[in-house]
Amino acid sequence: MPTADMPPDLDSIRLASERLAPWIHRTPILTSRTLDSICGGSVVLKAENFQKVGAFKIRGAMNALLQLNDGEKSRGVVTHSSGNHAQALAYAGRSLGVPVCVVMPVNAPAIKKAATEGYGATVVPCEPTLAARESTVADLIARHNYTLIHPFDDWRVIEGQATAAWELLDQAGPLDVVIVPVGGGGLLAGTALTVRGRSPSTRVIGAEPKAADDARRSLASGRIEPSNDPKTVADGLRTSLGERTFSIIRDNVDEIVTATEPEILDAMRFVLERFKILIEPSAAVPVAPVFNGSLDVRGLKVGIIISGGNVDLEPWFKSLADRWI
Amino acid sequence: MPTADMPPDLDSIRLASERLAPWIHRTPILTSRTLDSICGGSVVLKAENFQKVGAFKIRGAMNALLQLNDGEKSRGVVTHSSGNHAQALAYAGRSLGVPVCVVMPVNAPAIKKAATEGYGATVVPCEPTLAARESTVADLIARHNYTLIHPFDDWRVIEGQATAAWELLDQAGPLDVVIVPVGGGGLLAGTALTVRGRSPSTRVIGAEPKAADDARRSLASGRIEPSNDPKTVADGLRTSLGERTFSIIRDNVDEIVTATEPEILDAMRFVLERFKILIEPSAAVPVAPVFNGSLDVRGLKVGIIISGGNVDLEPWFKSLADRWI
Repeated sequence: MPTADMPPDLDSIRLASERLAPWIHRTPILTSRTLDSICGGSVVLKAENFQKVGAFKIRGAMNALLQLNDGEKSRGVVTHSSGNHAQALAYAGRSLGVPVCVVMPVNAPAIKKAATEGYGATVVPCEPTLAARESTVADLIARHNYTLIHPFDDWRVIEGQATAAWELLDQAGPLDVVIVPVGGGGLLAGTALTVRGRSPSTRVIGAEPKAADDARRSLASGRIEPSNDPKTVADGLRTSLGERTFSIIRDNVDEIVTATEPEILDAMRFVLERFKILIEPSAAVPVAPVFNGSLDVRGLKVGIIISGGNVDLEPWFKSLADRWI
Repeated sequence: MPTADMPPDLDSIRLASERLAPWIHRTPILTSRTLDSICGGSVVLKAENFQKVGAFKIRGAMNALLQLNDGEKSRGVVTHSSGNHAQALAYAGRSLGVPVCVVMPVNAPAIKKAATEGYGATVVPCEPTLAARESTVADLIARHNYTLIHPFDDWRVIEGQATAAWELLDQAGPLDVVIVPVGGGGLLAGTALTVRGRSPSTRVIGAEPKAADDARRSLASGRIEPSNDPKTVADGLRTSLGERTFSIIRDNVDEIVTATEPEILDAMRFVLERFKILIEPSAAVPVAPVFNGSLDVRGLKVGIIISGGNVDLEPWFKSLADRWI
């Protein structure tokens, strides 16, 4: 179990995997002969879109809550997120009887707020600035003595996310390359710790939108280079790295690859059409370089973690309804 | 093995299941606690959207081709379809080295023609009328001595479609109700033969769009009552019953339920959002009455065959591209 500011080691990730097992799905791995023949490699998708709340984020959120002491549990937790972490923490809190408070910018989609509240969490609105978000969180902690569960820059969260790659290695056997999306870096840092520890010769690659390439720039310069309000369809990857995630990624990740917006949409559509599974744009980002050949994986066995499947289907179904109803 | 005009019996369906095994996927069954809590029953989806060519249709097409003699195989086969049967027969023909010719109306979507040709079939256009289609097929048979593989009104095809329910019963155990979509009736007739034979007390229900309710009307009147160019988003279910499918359905199906266009879209969206799988509108039709409660399944174990996942994603991705690229 990691102490306050120590990264998890392989033993603690294995323990986290056991700790989480009763609470989450062991998601399947999927393959496609078409994708293999396109890229010349052998690709395995770890389908975390089938995970509880539709995303890997339940791993980190649940792992953090399971390690709170009784006082922390009864006082409750707070986070800031308008994405999958918000719903994951809300779901985990409801499962464990821990009060959850989520600070969300006032311009977050109504559907995200409703989903989070649907899992029983309290949503506190704030102005859509970093300063407003931090002061709102700080104020809530001061008033209620909540425990902060950061969406990615928290060792318990990183340890939880690390269990997705743990399962992937168990299910897929030896891999030459593992590719995962990188936004705040929780999944990439966790994956790097697992893979570096269990299979040192496997390359670990992060994939991010070209329009939000802070991880690529940060690895190049050796310090955190945030993206400023990046515009990308991959809404889960607009966040920049944190201190903890950056430190792990800097030391353990081999490469960051990027995908343009058309490349992300092409990959997402390919996965929908050929695998017949619903994935969110962020999940298509690590598929894109394999699908379009910008990353050469010929002859290699490749694992990709499909981060989630929470997509706003409203525009599509509105057009279907306009046509048919 | 069925002779020219005898329906398959249980033994021949079992043999077909073994015959097909090397050529098709044994698709998984899927469940959702959310759906179960909504309908009060226990629902299992047989995910034929994960099948070869994205639909159960490969079962009937492959089963028919596997039973041709060498002369028939070398002369080739013909069918008329602009839907999943066209692609299924083309795929099966390519797998077995049997030439395939598909008569398709000139107004069929270009994407369907391209997909069928992509599997190596020859597409012959015809005017979009029943008379033109039949004369074109007859002409091709006269000239090339092709064997006709009808999309649904053929015992070999019905026998192949019957194997989906065979697997469902193997995978899900005893079921109180089985619900499948009905267009031309190949899947429903095959399902009825399998379920009636293996589990006589299980109710067999067909589901069709309210806007194309020829099966409901035909069962009520006791004779085939075709729909005339029905308009429904469930493009796989616009066809009316054939003589062979009607005779089986009349004697072996307990009930036909219908779904309106909004109900079909609601069910399709629910399956996408909660199961995270891509299903076509036709596949949502048997889900709709369970999801919206128009069919009472409280306390029952229900099997639904998800017929396919071939959806035109172009409108959705066009709107995504317009916004992000």
